[in-house]
Order: sequence, then structure tokens, then C-alpha cells
Amino acid sequence: MVKILVIHGPNLNLLGKRETDIYGKFTIDDINREITDALKGKQVETEIFQSNHEGDIVDKINHTTAAGIVINPAAYTHTSVAIHDALKARQIPTVEVHLSNIYAREEFRHKSLIAPVATGQISGFGKASYILGIKALLEILNVR
Amino acid sequence: MVKILVIHGPNLNLLGKRETDIYGKFTIDDINREITDALKGKQVETEIFQSNHEGDIVDKINHTTAAGIVINPAAYTHTSVAIHDALKARQIPTVEVHLSNIYAREEFRHKSLIAPVATGQISGFGKASYILGIKALLEILNVR
Amino acid sequence: MVKILVIHGPNLNLLGKRETDIYGKFTIDDINREITDALKGKQVETEIFQSNHEGDIVDKINHTTAAGIVINPAAYTHTSVAIHDALKARQIPTVEVHLSNIYAREEFRHKSLIAPVATGQISGFGKASYILGIKALLEILNVR
Amino acid sequence: MVKILVIHGPNLNLLGKRETDIYGKFTIDDINREITDALKGKQVETEIFQSNHEGDIVDKINHTTAAGIVINPAAYTHTSVAIHDALKARQIPTVEVHLSNIYAREEFRHKSLIAPVATGQISGFGKASYILGIKALLEILNVR
Amino acid sequence: MVKILVIHGPNLNLLGKRETDIYGKFTIDDINREITDALKGKQVETEIFQSNHEGDIVDKINHTTAAGIVINPAAYTHTSVAIHDALKARQIPTVEVHLSNIYAREEFRHKSLIAPVATGQISGFGKASYILGIKALLEILNVR
Amino acid sequence: MVKILVIHGPNLNLLGKRETDIYGKFTIDDINREITDALKGKQVETEIFQSNHEGDIVDKINHTTAAGIVINPAAYTHTSVAIHDALKARQIPTVEVHLSNIYAREEFRHKSLIAPVATGQISGFGKASYILGIKALLEILNVR
Amino acid sequence: MVKILVIHGPNLNLLGKRETDIYGKFTIDDINREITDALKGKQVETEIFQSNHEGDIVDKINHTTAAGIVINPAAYTHTSVAIHDALKARQIPTVEVHLSNIYAREEFRHKSLIAPVATGQISGFGKASYILGIKALLEILNVR
Amino acid sequence: MVKILVIHGPNLNLLGKRETDIYGKFTIDDINREITDALKGKQVETEIFQSNHEGDIVDKINHTTAAGIVINPAAYTHTSVAIHDALKARQIPTVEVHLSNIYAREEFRHKSLIAPVATGQISGFGKASYILGIKALLEILNVR
Amino acid sequence: MVKILVIHGPNLNLLGKRETDIYGKFTIDDINREITDALKGKQVETEIFQSNHEGDIVDKINHTTAAGIVINPAAYTHTSVAIHDALKARQIPTVEVHLSNIYAREEFRHKSLIAPVATGQISGFGKASYILGIKALLEILNVR
Amino acid sequence: MVKILVIHGPNLNLLGKRETDIYGKFTIDDINREITDALKGKQVETEIFQSNHEGDIVDKINHTTAAGIVINPAAYTHTSVAIHDALKARQIPTVEVHLSNIYAREEFRHKSLIAPVATGQISGFGKASYILGIKALLEILNVR
Amino acid sequence: MVKILVIHGPNLNLLGKRETDIYGKFTIDDINREITDALKGKQVETEIFQSNHEGDIVDKINHTTAAGIVINPAAYTHTSVAIHDALKARQIPTVEVHLSNIYAREEFRHKSLIAPVATGQISGFGKASYILGIKALLEILNVR
Amino acid sequence: MVKILVIHGPNLNLLGKRETDIYGKFTIDDINREITDALKGKQVETEIFQSNHEGDIVDKINHTTAAGIVINPAAYTHTSVAIHDALKARQIPTVEVHLSNIYAREEFRHKSLIAPVATGQISGFGKASYILGIKALLEILNVR
Repeated sequence: MVKILVIHGPNLNLLGKRETDIYGKFTIDDINREITDALKGKQVETEIFQSNHEGDIVDKINHTTAAGIVINPAAYTHTSVAIHDALKARQIPTVEVHLSNIYAREEFRHKSLIAPVATGQISGFGKASYILGIKALLEILNVR
Repeated sequence: MVKILVIHGPNLNLLGKRETDIYGKFTIDDINREITDALKGKQVETEIFQSNHEGDIVDKINHTTAAGIVINPAAYTHTSVAIHDALKARQIPTVEVHLSNIYAREEFRHKSLIAPVATGQISGFGKASYILGIKALLEILNVR
Repeated sequence: MVKILVIHGPNLNLLGKRETDIYGKFTIDDINREITDALKGKQVETEIFQSNHEGDIVDKINHTTAAGIVINPAAYTHTSVAIHDALKARQIPTVEVHLSNIYAREEFRHKSLIAPVATGQISGFGKASYILGIKALLEILNVR
Repeated sequence: MVKILVIHGPNLNLLGKRETDIYGKFTIDDINREITDALKGKQVETEIFQSNHEGDIVDKINHTTAAGIVINPAAYTHTSVAIHDALKARQIPTVEVHLSNIYAREEFRHKSLIAPVATGQISGFGKASYILGIKALLEILNVR
Repeated sequence: MVKILVIHGPNLNLLGKRETDIYGKFTIDDINREITDALKGKQVETEIFQSNHEGDIVDKINHTTAAGIVINPAAYTHTSVAIHDALKARQIPTVEVHLSNIYAREEFRHKSLIAPVATGQISGFGKASYILGIKALLEILNVR
Repeated sequence: MVKILVIHGPNLNLLGKRETDIYGKFTIDDINREITDALKGKQVETEIFQSNHEGDIVDKINHTTAAGIVINPAAYTHTSVAIHDALKARQIPTVEVHLSNIYAREEFRHKSLIAPVATGQISGFGKASYILGIKALLEILNVR
Repeated sequence: MVKILVIHGPNLNLLGKRETDIYGKFTIDDINREITDALKGKQVETEIFQSNHEGDIVDKINHTTAAGIVINPAAYTHTSVAIHDALKARQIPTVEVHLSNIYAREEFRHKSLIAPVATGQISGFGKASYILGIKALLEILNVR
Repeated sequence: MVKILVIHGPNLNLLGKRETDIYGKFTIDDINREITDALKGKQVETEIFQSNHEGDIVDKINHTTAAGIVINPAAYTHTSVAIHDALKARQIPTVEVHLSNIYAREEFRHKSLIAPVATGQISGFGKASYILGIKALLEILNVR
Repeated sequence: MVKILVIHGPNLNLLGKRETDIYGKFTIDDINREITDALKGKQVETEIFQSNHEGDIVDKINHTTAAGIVINPAAYTHTSVAIHDALKARQIPTVEVHLSNIYAREEFRHKSLIAPVATGQISGFGKASYILGIKALLEILNVR
Repeated sequence: MVKILVIHGPNLNLLGKRETDIYGKFTIDDINREITDALKGKQVETEIFQSNHEGDIVDKINHTTAAGIVINPAAYTHTSVAIHDALKARQIPTVEVHLSNIYAREEFRHKSLIAPVATGQISGFGKASYILGIKALLEILNVR
Repeated sequence: MVKILVIHGPNLNLLGKRETDIYGKFTIDDINREITDALKGKQVETEIFQSNHEGDIVDKINHTTAAGIVINPAAYTHTSVAIHDALKARQIPTVEVHLSNIYAREEFRHKSLIAPVATGQISGFGKASYILGIKALLEILNVR
Repeated sequence: MVKILVIHGPNLNLLGKRETDIYGKFTIDDINREITDALKGKQVETEIFQSNHEGDIVDKINHTTAAGIVINPAAYTHTSVAIHDALKARQIPTVEVHLSNIYAREEFRHKSLIAPVATGQISGFGKASYILGIKALLEILNVR
């Protein structure tokens, strides 16, 4: 049995409720449900966590017992050295995901502080980014 | 009846207690009292909120039912993409205020990450910045 | 009796005649009328001045007898060290105003050469920026 | 009958009198005469204007009744947000011309503040730049 | 029947033959075989193309009849405006993939000229990046 | 008899077939036909060349016997030191043309590596940029 | 009796548990014990505080009654204007310490936002940085 | 008989009336008187000119018959390509003077656009800068 | 028997035919002859290759069986990540040579993308750079 | 018996004689005396060296037989690659000290070329910086 | 009796012997003689010092008993924080002089590290720069 | 008889004694011996000079009677405008050499202040860089 931690960063709780023209009408619960569906029948346990607090995300990474992480750091992608350090310290395989293509947006979103400590990054596929991220993580963890 | 949210960012709780030579002897309570006075007789309800936590401010913006926001993001003006994203997601008319003239201070205070998602900005008038901010917001909300 | 000088910078004479979709249909005369209305009943004399010439604005600031200035430097906001120096030399309380939120526009409009020598800045509230500016100035000059 | 405004920026009055080794021996009058010749027999009226004053050029653009503009902004190419704003406000088709190839000169001449609001730019062909500019403008205005 | 174009950029022909300690021992043929396997039983036709020539890749994109593209632009990621323009002109859904995490490598590999015109980007998962890219593309093209 | 070389850079073969809303519905053949028309009755021979390959364009410039060049370097405008060097080595009078106003587009299109070695530059007039370029070249070559 | 506040920033709770090859096998408790030992016999009371939350650290500084602070801001060294402002407001003598030599690490760790408001900085001596920091603080506070 | 032109740039008319603590109590008339005194008995005619208008200064340089210029460009030092071009076109020996040491002031005053086209520069000696400038000019013009 | 590959980059085919005042009158054939002469009597086989195509140079490096490379990347020195990657992948000892001193030329020629993956660099000695490069390579390969 | 080398960089010979308001009234001899006092009773021999010459400091480091170095590089902190290289070559444990907090001073003092090759850095504690530096060095050398 | 120290920086010993086309045929001795001439009859003692060693110049400034300094720091103008610090520590009125106009030369000569600590700067008048510097210094020292 | 000056910059005296894993076990004496060997039988006299002092190297260049120079400026490569000026003044043919490939090392070693005034540069071939440098110099001086 392998444990995976899924972290949703700040403001993702608003998904499907605000800016639906940009992000679509799916909510964070819809994403979580799709993740669960995608993992059906596999020996994988999932913990899902959302927070608007940088410190909470650092705490969670510090103490998790997960074997792999899928994280959408949202706004903290561009400003958090603390999450960078937390991931670096724990050395848990981590996939960074983004709903939108951050490289096609404002200049200040082009730089990710998380990417250098992630195994890899997936961006721009809407909620499919999460599912692809889960699949990438399973690949890394050798879970079939 | 229109609801307005006033957000005081980090360290503003120290107003009137520290650096009184710079910021004057008024406290955050004095500001709040002046806001209340200025709104007397108008159909306006006010919620006032102070926090030193970026995540708390994001939470507050995510869940508020206010029709307009006056925010002094203080230090987070220059570092918080998360508050930027929260304001952008909610699309509530927002006035950014600063006690001091941030453009006459250190280089790193010249760039506001909040300004591009605010309706407008008022800086440099001490506690009058807040009262002018309230008035600007009433104008935007068409409250007379 | 207190005298206030209102300076409209370059191209503001076109207000209400061009780009009405952006700036609205009000003209510079409408703004001036609102300023006059706002000052009714107060011991305040107003001089209003518009010029497309940097040198004229410098001349005006050099020789004014006003106790306070409200200035919309428009394009010269970003290029005029001469107006900066004029304001610095005279040390008259000055409020910088902008119709649009300059921080949500092109990169080259994010830097104000005037801000460091102004008391404060108000930007983004359309013609209300001027009225808020007048109010801010009255506050500074202790005119009730 | 279509009206065209030709604007010669600062120091162009010295053409043919100074630095003749660089710019050739033709004067501003020679250029104007060639423009007139090129327009002979066409339904086009021309107004020609030279000034060393940024403000005068802004005034002229603000009040012109021309259907198209050919402008050599000379030194103001690189420093004038005010002319940029004037052209942007009037939305008159505008061709920016330069006698010399500004991209083969000093670094500070490589950036044009006028180009983003012009229809197009022609640089490097000596006085032929003006004639090509007139032809480009006629094309835009559908004058044959 | 949907056609997918897979483009391998410069030097990828060396995979599995050089620097096997970094990139692993799999060859470009192994990747292609895995792609074919992953698409078995689906209504998808695949064209696979490798070139060290920027112009060849531009040609290929210009003339392809594919409904979707998976591209690993390799070195051209960071230098080719021509491939950027080709993808922008054709408007075919495109997934940019990278074997290694480009954001954990040299500074000059952090900037992708292709990303702003791709639908999304997947980097850092070795040859699995391709398979995830194919899956992302099928999702975009609604191929199940 | 004077020979002129017209070079169309990468992706221009797609003109009139893609992004017709931006670039219009004319094709590269239409441009070539207009060029031929414009030169009717003059002692001018024209060679027209299109390639998506930087090396092909360098080859062409290296070996041409033309007395003048009109080049639209398209994407290579911003990345090719090789074309810069080829033009510099041959010292053939060269006019750089662009369909769109490159100074009103993305930041990375504002810098031309070709401009410093061209006689002059014409940008922003659609297919008329080519005709103006031909005229400019005739002027330089003293062909009437 | 003098009170000293020791602040451990984000991720320092992982010390001795993760990356022991880099940071050594000592834990935060070991550091705290050494601090206590070093202060034995002196009239000094110590409060020790660790948090992964920027806001908690700001809160702590706002309300502390300590006469001096030793702070290892860890990741927040490079991103927190809020802690900068808190220290500036309270004007309590503060020693900034770092386990590793931040100037021998990644570029983004070379800039400290805390240093300009600290009395001094000690970096690179492992857990001895703390003991040296305590000694520096005693010197400043004239505690022998 | 040699003619010298002395140009005082913007805001210098305020000398001795404003900021006397910085610039001293001497007025522009005092400077002019000292210049006249210094030239007594020499075959030198002096024209003195002050303006707040960039265009007026350009006009003056364009049309002057002086054999040498002493100019304090004040604020236009840092922003005027037009005065740069005027001086470059006329090729009259020119000495740039500044009352204060511009290199010990704000960053934006460290760059002079005038210096590259002046013969030399004298800054930081108060009104003596002018007298030294006159002496330097006489030296250049070989007037004893 | 050791094999050496000599690569001449773009435009070097023009040597001795163009810009002879700068580069001298020797042709690429003269260089090749001197190389052959210099290697006479040594157990060295030479392959010489010139191309204006980045992709051709990448192809050549990918497939060469040479034990060492002397390359003059010319214009591609400053723009080609693809050649950088090809050299890095093959790990063949490589000497980068330049006819002219690239550090005494335009700013954009000061940065070599090839240097970090070459063993060493020789620039500024005209055609002698090649002969010195061959000698350096023999030294590295221990060929006497 | 362990030998320690203490290096005082340029201008430190003026300590206590100049700028006593900034640096205090203690002289370099006072510092040296305190160092001697601090080492009383320990098996440590001290060599103290002051020079205004970069080359002398390099010479000293090259030839020293000390087991550890405490260096205040003063002005050479920011400009000397030679001292950097000397320390790097000798690999002797080195503590960099500064009397003042260099990060609270002018921009050009924020960058230390010495820090990347020092074990650690101590800045801002006046002459106590030296004593703390000695203690840090003893810790590193395991001298009790 | 007032003492003045004249410092000639590195390579000035070569004056009149090398590059005479640029700097003229006068030697350092000629300059010294002119200085002596200019001071004839005044109560001024002069010490003249030339060195190619940064440390020697720092030593000289540290120990001089002069009441004023005229310094041509030559190459050290742009690289020496040590001379900057020496001048700052001694607080002796100092005039910085340059033979050539450093602002009309290479980019790296535009920045003076000495200027911020000098009273003023004179550049571009050949050996007359020294004489003007002496006069400026006499003015500052009130020597007539 | 031709005289050649070989200059070894700072810290090169440590060669073969320190960091032998990086630079190899050869000493400066070994290099000098190889230089002597390489020149055997030629009409060349050699002067060899090593110094850690920038000023000494400037002195040496100022006064040398050599017809050519081979210099390894080591650390002063990146910081010495004085050596740049000395070489520029003397106009003696100069070859700059480096043991290591400076372009494959730290960013601050990529910029050479010496290169623009050297004839050419050779870097990265260990002690062979010197021998190649000698050969390049003989070529320039036409010594066979």
C-alpha cells in the first residue's frame, strides 16, 4: 500500500465558483473525485489537503508519511522559498502541477521556485494536469 | 444595505505604539473609529479585520460577502501573489491604501503586486488614506 | 482664504472627446466644475491650469502663490525630472492624481518621477481621483 | 480632398546647414518641396510643421484636422510619452519616419516610444524616408 | 481516425548512445515503440519525425495534416522563434515535452520560447514525459 | 539591367492560409505578383526566394549576384547572427521589411539583429511594406 | 533579569532528521540545549520559538517582551518583508543567524531582507552560529 | 571679440529663493554678476539665457552665434536627447556645469545625456562651477 | 592513426573574397592547406567540413568518428544551444577557434555558448588561430 | 600550539582616529589587545597583519603557516578576486568579519567576493565582530 | 601656509610618451610645472605623488597632512572602493580630475567610485583639468 | 634578438603546491622551463615576472622594453582597469593566456577586462596555454 499526498495551494478552493470562464466549472471536489477514480483498483491511499497558508503547506510536507506528492502550489509557486526548502529536506518524489499554462501568463508567473526541487512539472491541461500528475507519480513510484 | 470589508495587513496592530515619530500616535482603533464616523448615516455595514498572516487574509477575501474592500496590505503589498490571486478571483471592487507614500521609501516598496488587481490606489496621507479610500469605494459602489 | 492650484498635464484637454470608451464622456470642464462644486462654501480659491508644455508647468509651479497643489502630470509623470525638481524646490504640499490605475497599464507607466516629491498619490478612480485629491489636500492644509 | 500633416521634430531646422557630411546638403525646405512634388495631381492638401518644442507638437496633434500624419519625431522619439499619448488619443493613421537608420546608431536611439502607436515605421533612407512615408500613408488612406 | 505528429528535436537521435548515465539507456526507437504501444487499440495514426534542423521542423509543422502535436524541441526550446511562429500560425493543439526537468538545469534552459504557444508542458519524467504527453493530447482531442 | 533579390523568411509560405484575420487573405504569391507589377517597365530583374532554413538564407546571400536585397527575415530577425554576418560580409544594399509593426508586438520582437547591417527598415504596412521596400531599394540603386 | 527570544524559522524542526549529511545530526533540541548551557549562571531568561508560519513569527515579534532577539529566519530570510517590518517596528536588538554560509549557496539565498534591520549577522558556523549569536546579543545588551 | 552663451536650465530661476540651506543664498543674478566680473577686461561678450522650456533651450542653441557655451542643463541633463542633438549638430565647444555634485545624489541624476557631447564637465563647486566653466571655455577658445 | 574533424561555421566560405581589409586575403582553402601542412608527417587524418546550416553542423558532430574537433562556430558561437548540446553529448575533446578577437568586437559577440563545453578557446590570431588550435588538440590527444 | 592569522584590510589603520562617531573611539591596537586577551590561557599563537595593499594581503595568505584566518577585508571585500583566489587555493579555515553591518550600507557593499570562500561571516557587531570571529575559528579548529 | 596634495593615478607616468595623438605631448612633469606656476605667489605648499599602486595611494591619503587634495585616480576611478574609503575616512576636501571626458568613452568608464566622496569633479579639459582643479580647491579652502 | 615578457599574475606562485587536483602538479618553475625549452634555438630573449600586486604588473608593463607580452592576469583579468590601461598605452602585441577554461567556471570569471586590449586569448589548455601563447606571439612578431 502506497500513500500519495495531493496538495492544493491558495485560492484553489474557489475553483468552479469564480472565474469559471477561465478555469471551467469544475470544483476542487470534482478534481478530487477524478483523482480517486483514477486510482481505483490500485494499491494507493490518497490524502488530499488544501490550504491558503504557506506555513500549513510547509507543516504538511514536514510531517507527511506519503511516498509521493502531487502539488499545485498556485500563487506560492512564485514566492515560497519555504515550500522549496520543505520539499528539498524531505526528498519525497514530487510532481508540480498547474491548471493553466503558467508560461503563457504574466511575466511574474514564469518563474517557479518549486520546479528545481520537483521531479517534474506538468502545466496547462486544466484538471487533467492533476490526473497526468498522478500517473507520472505512479510511474516514479513504480506503482502499476 | 451595502457591506464593506476593511483589511489591515501585518504589523498595523502596532500603530500608535511603535515608531510614533513616523506614523503618528493614532492606533488602529482610532482609524477604525474614524471609518465608523465617516460612514454614520449611510446604508453601510463595515467588517474590520487585521491579521499578520497572509493565509488569513486570503481566507477572508475568499469567503467575504462584502460588496467592496479597502485593504492596506502593508508588507504583503510587495510579496503576496496569493492576495493578488484572491482579489482577482473574487472581482470585488477594491481600494488599496497606504499610510505612507510608498514611492518615497526603499526601492523594494515601489512595486505593488496588489495594484494591478485593485480598482485604484491611495497612498501617503496617513490615516486619511483610509477615509479617502472609503469615500472612493462608496463612489464606485454608488453609495451616497 | 486658502489658494489651491490644479494642474492638468498634457493631452487632458482631449478628455471626453477622444477615447471615451476608456476615459468616459466627461470633459476637463466637467472635472473643473465638480472641483468647484466640491469646494463650495469653503474658504478656498482655486486656480486651474492645463498645458501640454513641460516648461509651462514648471513655470507655473515656480511662480504660484498657492498653498497646495493637485496635479495630474499625465505623460510627464514618467519623464519629467524638471517638474520633480520644481515641486521639490517649492515644497508646497502636493497631491498627484491619475484618472486610470497606472499600475495596471503598460510597464513604462509604472514608474512615477513625481511620486517621490508628492505628499501622496491617488490613482484609478476616474474623475473622482481629482475630488479625492482635493479632499486629501484640504486635510493636509487643515481646511474644513 | 484629404489633408495630411507632416511634422518635423527638434533640430531638423538645422538640416543641410550642420553635419552635412552625415545628413547630406539638403535642407528641410528641400524635403518639403519633394513632398509637394510627390503629391502633385493628387487630391491631397498638406500642412507642414516644425518645432523644437515637445508641447507644440502635442498641441498640433491634439488640434489637427488631418486624416493622416507623417512624423519624424527626431530626439523626442526616445523620450516623449506625451507625443505617444497624443497620437494614441487621436487615433489618426500615422507613419513614423527617420532620416538615419536609428538601429545602427547609439543604444539610446534603438527604443522608439512612438512606434507602438504608429501604423508603421520607415527609417534609414535619408530624405527618401519622407517620400516613402507619404506613399505609405496614401496607401493606408486609400488615396491613389 | 486522428493523426498525431511526434517531433523529436536536435540531438535526440543520440539517446541511449551517449550520456546514458544522465538520460538512461533507452533509445529514440524505444520511446517510439512505447508511444505505439500506448496508442494500441485507439483510432490514432502516428507520424514520428526527428531532425537536427530548425528549418526542417518548421517545414514539418507548416505542412502537417496532424490534429495534434507532441514536440520535444530540445535545444531549439530556448532559441527558436521560427518554431514558435510555426506553431502559432497552425494553431494545432501542441504538447511540449522534455525528458529532463529543464528548470533544474542551467539558467539558459529555464526559458522556453515554445511554451507560450503550446497548450501545455510536461518536463522531467524521462521517457514517461512522452507517454504523458500523448495522454494529454488525447485528452485535448477528446480521443478515448 | 539591375538584379534584385527578394527573400521571404520562415513561415511566410503560410500567408493567406493561416491567421488571415491578422495578416489578411493575400498569399506570398500575391505579394510576388505585386512586386512584379511594380517593377514593370523598369530595367530590373527579380529573383524571389522563400525558405524556412536559416542556413539556406545564408547560402543565398553568400552566392547571390543581385545588386540589392529586400528581405523579410521574419522569425530570424530576432535570432540570426548568421544572416547578420552574411549581409555584413556581402555589403549589398539591403532593405529590411516587416508586414506587421514589430514594435507594437511582444517584447522579444522589438530587437532586430538584421537592422544594424541593413540600409534601412520598413515595418507595419502589410504587403505594402514590400512595395515600399522595392521603391526604397530602387532609390538607393538609382534606378528610375 | 534579561529576556532573550530565540526564533527558529521554517523547516528547522527537521534538523537532524533530514539531510544530515549537509546539516549534521544535531536536532533543534540539541541547539536549544546548547543555548541553555551557554547561558547557565547568567541573569538571562530564554524563550524559544519555532514556526513554519511567517504570520506566527510576525505575531511573536509584535508581542514579545524580550530585550533581544536571535533569529534564524531560514527561508523567510529571502522573502519576508513582513518580518522585516516587524523587527523595524519593535527596534529590539536582533542578531540574524544562519547554519550554512548563505553566500556560498544558490543566488536567491544571497539577498537577506532581514539583514538591513538586524544589528548584525552570523552565518556559516553550523549550530555554533546560534551560540555566537547569543554571545553577540549579550555583548549588545551588556550582559556579562 | 568672442561671444559666449551661458544657459541656465529649468528651476535655476529659483536659486537663492528656495532650498537656500542646500544651494546657498546666492541668486541667478549673483552668478551672472560673478561671470561678468570674471570676464572684465577680456575681449568677451556674454549672452545669458534662462528657461524652463526644453524647446527654448534647443532653439537658443540652434540659432546662437556664440563661439562657446557654458550650460547648466539642470533637470534636462538626465532626460533631454533634444539638447544632446542640438549641441551635437552645432559643434560649438561646450562646458557642462552643475552646482551640486550630481554623482553624490539620487541614482537617476548619475547619468548625463549631455556629457557625451560636451567638451568637458564641472560639477559640485556651487556657483564656482560656473566661473571654472567660463575659465575652461576661455582656455578652449584660446582667450587670455 | 588519429582522426581530427575541422568545422568551419557559417559565412567562412566567403573568407578572402569579402572584407579582405578586415580578415586578410587568405581563403578557407588556404587555411585548410596550412592545416594539412602542419600535420605532415604525423599520424593524423583530417576531415574538413564547412556549412552555413546549424543542423548540418549538429549532424556532423553527432556522427563523426573523430577523436578530436577544431571548430570555428562563427555566428553560431553566440546563438546555438543545439551545437552546445551536440558537443556535450559526444564528449569529444574540442578546441573552439576564432579568427578575430571576439572580445574586442560588438557586445553580442562577447558571449560564447560553445565555450562551456569546449576544452579551451583560442581567439584573435587570424588563420594562426586554427594552427594553434590543431596544436592544442594534438597536445590533448597526446599526438607528437 | 595552533597559529591564527588576523588580517586587517585597507584603512583600518585609521580606526579610532577618523569617523569616531561611526566606528567608535577604539583603535586597531585596542582590537588587537582584546584579541590577545580573549586567547589568554589557550594554546594559540597569533599573527596580526594590516595592509592597505591587495597584493600584500595575497602574499600574506599565500605564505602563512597559520591553521586558521580571521580577516576583515574592508574595501577589498567588494572588489578583490585575488584575495578570493588566495583563500580558495590555501583552503585554510577562514572567518570573514566586518565592524559594521555591510547589508545596511550602500548597495555596492552588499556583495562580498570573499564570502563564498570563507567558512562563515560575522558582520555588524563593532569590535566584538573580531572576538566572535576568533571564537568561531577556535570552534572550527576544535581549540577549547 | 596651506598644503595641497596632488595625486596622479596609474599609468599617468606614461603621459607624453605614449598615445600622444590622444593625450597630447605634454608629460606629467609639464603638468606639475603648470601647477607650480599657477600657485606662484600664493601661500600654498604642494606635494605631488604618482603611483601605479592602489595601496600606495591609500597609504598616502591615510597619512597626508594636506588641507586639500586634487586627485586623478585614472583606472582606479572605476574599481577602487579602497580609495573611496580612504577619502571618506579623512574628510579632506578633494577635487577629482580627469584629462579626458570619461562620459564620452567606454561604458565601464562612466561610473566613478570616487565621485560620491569628492567635493566635485572636473573632466575633459586635458591638462587644464588639473589647473581648474587647483583653482576649485583654492576656492573651497578660501585661499586667494 | 627579440625580447619577450612573460607575466604570471596573482596566486600563480602557488601552482603545483595547492589544488593540484584541479591545476595539476606542475609548478610555475615547470612552466618557465617549458617556455625556455620551446624557445631554444630561436633569437628570443625571455623575461619572466610573477607578482601578486596589480601595481607591480602595471609598473612592469609601463617600463618593459619587450617586443611582445604573454600574460596570465589570473584574478586581475576580471578586476583590473589599470592593467587594461597599461597595455593600451604601450601598444605592445600581447597574448592573454589562462590555464583553465574561464568560460566554464563561475559567472564572474566570464568577463575579461584584458581581452579587449590583447591581440588574442588562449584559455583552457593547462600549462600548454603558455606554450601556445608563446607560439602565437612568435607568429605575430614574425619570429621563426
